[in-house]
Amino acid sequence: MPETAGQVIRCKAAVAWEAGKPLVIEEIEVAPPEAMEVRLKILYTSLCHSDVHFWEAKDQTPVFPRIFGHEAGGIVESVGKGVTDLAPGDHVLPIFTGECGECADCKSKESNLCRLLGVDPNRKTMISDGKSRFSINGKTIYYFIGSTFSQYTVVPAGCVAKINPLAPLDKVFILSCGISTGLGASLNVAKPFKGSTVAIFGLGTIGLAAAEGARIAGASRIIGIDLNPQKFDIAKKFGVNEFVNPKDHDRPIQEVLAEMTDGGADRAIECTGNVNVMMSAYECVRSGWGVAVMVGIPPQNAVFSINPMQFISETKTIKGTVFGNYKPRSDIPTLVEKCMNKELEMEKFITHDVPLSEINKAFEYLLKGESLRCVIRMHA
Amino acid sequence: MPETAGQVIRCKAAVAWEAGKPLVIEEIEVAPPEAMEVRLKILYTSLCHSDVHFWEAKDQTPVFPRIFGHEAGGIVESVGKGVTDLAPGDHVLPIFTGECGECADCKSKESNLCRLLGVDPNRKTMISDGKSRFSINGKTIYYFIGSTFSQYTVVPAGCVAKINPLAPLDKVFILSCGISTGLGASLNVAKPFKGSTVAIFGLGTIGLAAAEGARIAGASRIIGIDLNPQKFDIAKKFGVNEFVNPKDHDRPIQEVLAEMTDGGADRAIECTGNVNVMMSAYECVRSGWGVAVMVGIPPQNAVFSINPMQFISETKTIKGTVFGNYKPRSDIPTLVEKCMNKELEMEKFITHDVPLSEINKAFEYLLKGESLRCVIRMHA
Repeated sequence: MPETAGQVIRCKAAVAWEAGKPLVIEEIEVAPPEAMEVRLKILYTSLCHSDVHFWEAKDQTPVFPRIFGHEAGGIVESVGKGVTDLAPGDHVLPIFTGECGECADCKSKESNLCRLLGVDPNRKTMISDGKSRFSINGKTIYYFIGSTFSQYTVVPAGCVAKINPLAPLDKVFILSCGISTGLGASLNVAKPFKGSTVAIFGLGTIGLAAAEGARIAGASRIIGIDLNPQKFDIAKKFGVNEFVNPKDHDRPIQEVLAEMTDGGADRAIECTGNVNVMMSAYECVRSGWGVAVMVGIPPQNAVFSINPMQFISETKTIKGTVFGNYKPRSDIPTLVEKCMNKELEMEKFITHDVPLSEINKAFEYLLKGESLRCVIRMHA
Repeated sequence: MPETAGQVIRCKAAVAWEAGKPLVIEEIEVAPPEAMEVRLKILYTSLCHSDVHFWEAKDQTPVFPRIFGHEAGGIVESVGKGVTDLAPGDHVLPIFTGECGECADCKSKESNLCRLLGVDPNRKTMISDGKSRFSINGKTIYYFIGSTFSQYTVVPAGCVAKINPLAPLDKVFILSCGISTGLGASLNVAKPFKGSTVAIFGLGTIGLAAAEGARIAGASRIIGIDLNPQKFDIAKKFGVNEFVNPKDHDRPIQEVLAEMTDGGADRAIECTGNVNVMMSAYECVRSGWGVAVMVGIPPQNAVFSINPMQFISETKTIKGTVFGNYKPRSDIPTLVEKCMNKELEMEKFITHDVPLSEINKAFEYLLKGESLRCVIRMHA
């Protein structure tokens, strides 16, 4: 154990004091990990739409001050009691959802929704004792599914994937959330067959990772749907080979897609979270074997309404996924190996790079739709 | 070819002259089969809820006079031009949905929705020439997905499964619709794993066949849900080992099931077609790996509305099926063999037996919920 073990660490963090207001770089205190927790030195983090969603706090009970951030890579600084499979110095990715290894879901091949450590973005403290490990002069700063916008953070050991220390952490760390989510939505859930047609709704990072998954699976037509035509150029790098902008059509997009594909796409992957788009994604898959996979997170009180005859007369399937159905600790190290073997390429997802002091720029890039992933260097 | 080949056959049929009114036994004329059609001598038929639905003709454009009936067994009398795989004397089951063998769906392992011969209960004449083969003194009597309430009928050759002539036709003929639908909904679509918990909504013939499928697949808890407690005794013969009557509870049935099963059933199979029950069936499956399969046919303008967060935060799947995903001509002969090997037991589904002259009794039994399958003997 290093000499900081068991001590409070003082470090910098980007603190959200108020909903929608720029983060403020503060010096904070990070308490040591309790039992079954680990304290991580975060080296790289990036911004994901879920951070933005809870930072904006629309239609939510606001929880502030809070440290956002959950897609990250770092090194174990120290471990709490009972942690045997992680040690100081390990290279790790914290993951927003966990894997206790013991519950029915962890023991099933079909689920990655750990009953103990499953994602809960409303949780603002640690499960073990209901306290946050962050403070500024004694004032509590709340936790958020990883709180990686801090140079040091404390997370449950079950939310940490140990990866090959030779992997380039400043690139593979983006497997901690969005890339794995999109990739797995294709490879593990939609499972497009060779030569199939896949419609991807929303060409942000998750949608592009889903396209990459479809390409790897052997889909031959990958149709990207987005309102922003600027996305189309970048999407070409990810295997998207046809584009539809709903603004260019005065009829429902599912009709346009049905015509383009002689009856519908074989698979659709919805990455916007807009409930109307979710319904279009279901409508757009073909009868007989169409599968629509829901990835984007809808607003809290959204209602998904369809004519249920489609279930029967068209035998189409709706599925959904969290984190692309990957089990965080079991599966992510394998994806990292695939990056090292060049089977997966993270570089093309990284469009920007800023030091922690400029973290608010990452918000600007994302909100303007200019960036895919912006690396935030926590110790630069 | 027999001497009747190419000739009009006069025979008896139960004709529906008006919506909801008792059928009338009439002497009708049955024209010979045209190209790619076959004329069948129907020996046994039974009554299914779909017949009742279109006979009642609620919220539909009424089509009368019409000959209902589609679950049946018989013998090929003659074949039209181009039919090479069926010959007079073959033992067959007509199936309400077809298999042309040539379309994309027929060529896919994943679909049984033939593009050419897929079920269309609104079709009232033959595809080939838009005419019905039935008449009474020149007046057209309309067709309905098989029209097996006639001693002779004409159907597309692609809607006929040729079966082992040694099979007991008076029993195996019920594989022509309901039993295969329920059985396949379990075995081919829900695919319950060993030791799993399956909730079956609606304990009619299809629900009980679904239960039988769940039992064969190795499910250990098969929970039957029905408003009629009389169904519970008979359901025990089909592997249902727990019962829930929604009338006994003052809270949503999905909550009752969640409590009984520590979080939800692994699989749900909906066999009522009531859209509220469809929603309950989805709500009642557990997060992580729950699959709800929709089998019952909802009213035309029903709306299925749910909170879409369930797709994501619970990663539950909704599927649907027609005819249990069996391909009619390819798969049904195998199910018949399973009956001959005693792997499947049809006897327990057959609760009543009437001659054609008493066909209206079959309607009474079904509408009162007293029967599962009533054999209607067409030449008794």
